[in-house]
Amino acid sequence: MKIPSLNSLVHELSRLPGVGPKTAQRLAYHILRSPNDFVQSLRDALKNVKEKIHECPVCYSFTEEEEACHYCADPNRSRETLCVVEDPIDIERIETSGVFRGRYHVLHGAIAPLEGIGPEDLKIQALLERLDPSTENPNGIKEVILALDADLEGDTTVLYLAKILKDKGIRASRIAHGVPIGGDIDYIDFRTLGRAIENRVQV
Amino acid sequence: MKIPSLNSLVHELSRLPGVGPKTAQRLAYHILRSPNDFVQSLRDALKNVKEKIHECPVCYSFTEEEEACHYCADPNRSRETLCVVEDPIDIERIETSGVFRGRYHVLHGAIAPLEGIGPEDLKIQALLERLDPSTENPNGIKEVILALDADLEGDTTVLYLAKILKDKGIRASRIAHGVPIGGDIDYIDFRTLGRAIENRVQV
Repeated sequence: MKIPSLNSLVHELSRLPGVGPKTAQRLAYHILRSPNDFVQSLRDALKNVKEKIHECPVCYSFTEEEEACHYCADPNRSRETLCVVEDPIDIERIETSGVFRGRYHVLHGAIAPLEGIGPEDLKIQALLERLDPSTENPNGIKEVILALDADLEGDTTVLYLAKILKDKGIRASRIAHGVPIGGDIDYIDFRTLGRAIENRVQV
Repeated sequence: MKIPSLNSLVHELSRLPGVGPKTAQRLAYHILRSPNDFVQSLRDALKNVKEKIHECPVCYSFTEEEEACHYCADPNRSRETLCVVEDPIDIERIETSGVFRGRYHVLHGAIAPLEGIGPEDLKIQALLERLDPSTENPNGIKEVILALDADLEGDTTVLYLAKILKDKGIRASRIAHGVPIGGDIDYIDFRTLGRAIENRVQV
């Protein structure tokens, strides 16, 4: 297309994850046809996200609060259970499930030796500091739930953290792997199914 | 999530076509983690698209040129063949094929009685003016190729325009329907296949 501003927008949009050149073009045309105030709101939203949001100094999730984030500041949440996740977005997913009422800790990734990401690149030191009874909770954290991705990097990080937690005498658990709710056994891969059988629950 | 600016961005992004709430959330998190200059370029691109681009006064496609768009102003393109499309983005697709060297006319939609879109809501009057030999081309336009979508609205518009063009003595054609290149007959729906057989080409 011989429209430089449209090409630039297509270029910028196609840098977003999951947006290929054709999708970027469709989005750009849609934006071009949208009312000015939609484009203005989108531009404002982009600006605010970068200006107002920072990392929570306690759990390293994202927040707009002055100090600790919404979850860390909530006195009704248990200080004895800590859920460790890779990314702030994972907190969203867990909150939607409604079954966890403790606090969170965001690693901002997982150990990935092939990509050169080691424990020192993640918020693991900060996690160990939180586990120290003198820091955050005088009664200490009783259990750490590792809610990491079920991939190689997640597994590596779980093994790494499980050893440290064991040495510290803190109970560590990992979220269960198995057949998703609504899942048809016919369509489940053999590794998941194997794990589901190993981790069977008495009924 | 209790982060208002992130929620606003998710809201704005989910107004884009094909972007559901989960995709919007993933995009928003990605943007939040992106460098400031990416977000700035995206904001600038959004601004420029709305400020710099307008409709070409000849073909009604989008352009950034002062007067006629790139295609209308190109003296090397035939003035005798006019390709009618629904949307400016369709011009992109046709240009990529590389087989058409005439000019374009954008209707900005198709006749859709159920949605209350009639011929007067489209650039059909402007098309008829262009077909008048006195207006644009002293030799007149010899052929109009209707490259409209293969849906009910496209079909309705083709029928409507074909009648007008016939009355004016201008040759009208419609792009072929059939099995897509690389397509497996096994996977083609029966209507397309029926049309492909009816419109078979001698070899």
